[in-house]
Amino acid sequence: MKCLIIAAGQGTRLGGEVPKPLAPLLGVPLLERAILTAEEAGATSFVIVVGYAGDAVCAFLDGLKRRRVLDLTVLALAPPGKENGWSVLSARAHLDEPFLLLLMADHVMAPVLLRDLVGHGLDGSDLVLAVDRNKRPLEDTDVTRVLVHGGLIQAIGKGLDHFNCYDTGAFLCSPALFGALDQALAQGDTSLCGGVRVLAERGRAKALYVERGFWVDVDTPMELRKAESLLLGSLTKPTDGPVSRYVNRRISCPITALLARTSVTPNQVSVVSFLLALVAFGLFLHPSYRALAAAGLLAQLSSILDGTDGELARLKWMGTKFGGWLDSILDRYADGFLLAGLTYHAHLGRPGWSTLLIGFLALAGSFVNTYSAGLFDQTLRGDSACPGTSRFRIGRDVRLFLVFLGAVTGLPLIALVLIAILMNVEVVRRLVLMRTYLSGLEPAGTGGSPP
Amino acid sequence: MKCLIIAAGQGTRLGGEVPKPLAPLLGVPLLERAILTAEEAGATSFVIVVGYAGDAVCAFLDGLKRRRVLDLTVLALAPPGKENGWSVLSARAHLDEPFLLLLMADHVMAPVLLRDLVGHGLDGSDLVLAVDRNKRPLEDTDVTRVLVHGGLIQAIGKGLDHFNCYDTGAFLCSPALFGALDQALAQGDTSLCGGVRVLAERGRAKALYVERGFWVDVDTPMELRKAESLLLGSLTKPTDGPVSRYVNRRISCPITALLARTSVTPNQVSVVSFLLALVAFGLFLHPSYRALAAAGLLAQLSSILDGTDGELARLKWMGTKFGGWLDSILDRYADGFLLAGLTYHAHLGRPGWSTLLIGFLALAGSFVNTYSAGLFDQTLRGDSACPGTSRFRIGRDVRLFLVFLGAVTGLPLIALVLIAILMNVEVVRRLVLMRTYLSGLEPAGTGGSPP
Repeated sequence: MKCLIIAAGQGTRLGGEVPKPLAPLLGVPLLERAILTAEEAGATSFVIVVGYAGDAVCAFLDGLKRRRVLDLTVLALAPPGKENGWSVLSARAHLDEPFLLLLMADHVMAPVLLRDLVGHGLDGSDLVLAVDRNKRPLEDTDVTRVLVHGGLIQAIGKGLDHFNCYDTGAFLCSPALFGALDQALAQGDTSLCGGVRVLAERGRAKALYVERGFWVDVDTPMELRKAESLLLGSLTKPTDGPVSRYVNRRISCPITALLARTSVTPNQVSVVSFLLALVAFGLFLHPSYRALAAAGLLAQLSSILDGTDGELARLKWMGTKFGGWLDSILDRYADGFLLAGLTYHAHLGRPGWSTLLIGFLALAGSFVNTYSAGLFDQTLRGDSACPGTSRFRIGRDVRLFLVFLGAVTGLPLIALVLIAILMNVEVVRRLVLMRTYLSGLEPAGTGGSPP
Repeated sequence: MKCLIIAAGQGTRLGGEVPKPLAPLLGVPLLERAILTAEEAGATSFVIVVGYAGDAVCAFLDGLKRRRVLDLTVLALAPPGKENGWSVLSARAHLDEPFLLLLMADHVMAPVLLRDLVGHGLDGSDLVLAVDRNKRPLEDTDVTRVLVHGGLIQAIGKGLDHFNCYDTGAFLCSPALFGALDQALAQGDTSLCGGVRVLAERGRAKALYVERGFWVDVDTPMELRKAESLLLGSLTKPTDGPVSRYVNRRISCPITALLARTSVTPNQVSVVSFLLALVAFGLFLHPSYRALAAAGLLAQLSSILDGTDGELARLKWMGTKFGGWLDSILDRYADGFLLAGLTYHAHLGRPGWSTLLIGFLALAGSFVNTYSAGLFDQTLRGDSACPGTSRFRIGRDVRLFLVFLGAVTGLPLIALVLIAILMNVEVVRRLVLMRTYLSGLEPAGTGGSPP
């Protein structure tokens, strides 16, 4: 699928020093973000129309092409400063696909929104525009308004008085759009809306109501901040446990926002998170309460940073399979050292084999918990019909939060008992769930004895 | 894909009390084995022609149908005792597929052999017979001989003097076989070979040389034992580690052969293996050498039984996803208890935190080793290009063998040191391998900093 992105704007109101397509949003320029979002939604080849500050944008795209290994064609709009209908028309010679994704570089959106649009397809029409009938943009005077009736676009424009939804800036279109733009041009209208209006008059322009994912038309610093907060808010994962969801993400997201503006990589964060756990292990060996509390704080910080590496990877498209691997393995070692350290400290307060046994049960339960989580997710991948898969998840976030609580309250043994119980009970719960779930899929017969 | 199985034989030479199709081979009757092997190779629907002791075979198949949820049609050949050409013809009304798998109930074979035949397809001919040009059957006077030239069957028959391969008893055929059998019948030949000969004369019968997997035509008790040993020999897995391959399988296979004749299930074996590890843990807590050595022996026995559950499942088609799951989780707990027990015993001989630390490192290394093995196999599934994936695998078999050796030699601490080193080094080796492997797949660019 080809994708045409209009990146000709100046962005005066954004007030930055760089042209608008290069304005960074959490470490990634708007244009790069648009390209990579489209790639996530299935685009494999890109045509970018640049206008204002064309040389700077071209130079950036040259670098991006090499860095990301992208199929990318750059067209410079001459003279710059024309309306976006001109921009689209100037790309005509490069586009003869029956099916084209058309985006604006300054519209930030969730990949899922684009995936839904691409999944919907042209559906027999010449143009499908993703529109939003729910969210009211920050500054709605500047967002294009749309009047939709019976799934068809009736009217479109910024000044529209009678309207029922907003233009998200994401289009699917057939080559008929170019003819429509020609016709609008002949009538003196050089905007993209002009072309859409021509198709709408013929009853060939449909609208798709977006159901999932956010979008922001970024024109002002306020809208840029809004886009930032929506992006950060989209970083939670469906497999997040309760501590992760209600505590850790609230701290890790701001950290991620800070780190995103630097060149720090997710793997570096993974390693730092692991090193913090090692330092905590060392502190646990000290008999003082202060060392214990400090170790607990470091354990929790390590747990929070364990969210940051993934957030950073998703936010800046920096995720690699090896990175995910490294993170998983370092997490397991970190878990081991933290629980061993806590056990040592608990043993200082209450020497004896029973303390060590409890530590061992917490450690083994934690390991098997993680191990079974992987098996569990694999078996149930994509099947949300199985009860209890996501609502309630006792995992690493809960475990390290208990380490933290046990340390700062000076009750390491109680924390270990709780961890040992929770982790092992969760393993048994998963076994029972899986047995119920799989017995519904597999025939009851098990070979049995021969006659 | 439909599969026709001829199960009309009496099996006088086999000497058992049951009719030949019901003669048990490692706990599974020959006919059930043929059906389930064909199902593994892709057959979804079965037509079975029964003859001798038709009532008993029909009753068995009725039970099997319910027990295994199979699409199964049973035809009784009347009068029984006819040659196998008759048997095939009697199924004609039930078979109008362009493509049919035809098997003999008394030919035992590896699923991979059938998969290769099915994968090959008819290839434009009316019949393809899987033939073996390498293996000499035990009693070759009774096995059908085939003369193949240029991929085409030239002659086929038991008494053939001039031949170059043997008939494995697995055919793919088109409905043209029925016409050919009619023609042979008109000439007074009621054998399946007669029909094949008619097709061969027209140049419509091909032969496929089998490259993988065993097969045995079971007519005598000696051939039944041969089939048993081939089946047991096929139970090793490509992921087997060195101890598993060269030590454990040699003991677990005979145990599996014994258990296969009973109604013991793989899950029961998994639980017993786990309980043995728990008993070993208890013995480790005793300070005497005798208890230590006994614990070591139990650990090794537990490791051997850990092979048996999977062998039994594969041998008798008793494997379930839940069973695999249960086994994995019990194995993790067993590992934990065995290493904790060994650590306790080592601490009796050499008290101090350093012993406990070594025990912890052995335990953590073992857990992460298993955890990373799962990730490793998942990432590299089906890609044998990555070096070092199977040749050398340090896993559970090695770990428990070291526990055993450490215990019987009275050197538990040395065993723990070795386990700690080997397990953690293997994790690092996998990380390095994955890094090298994945860097070849993923683009080098990782987002980097914005301009």
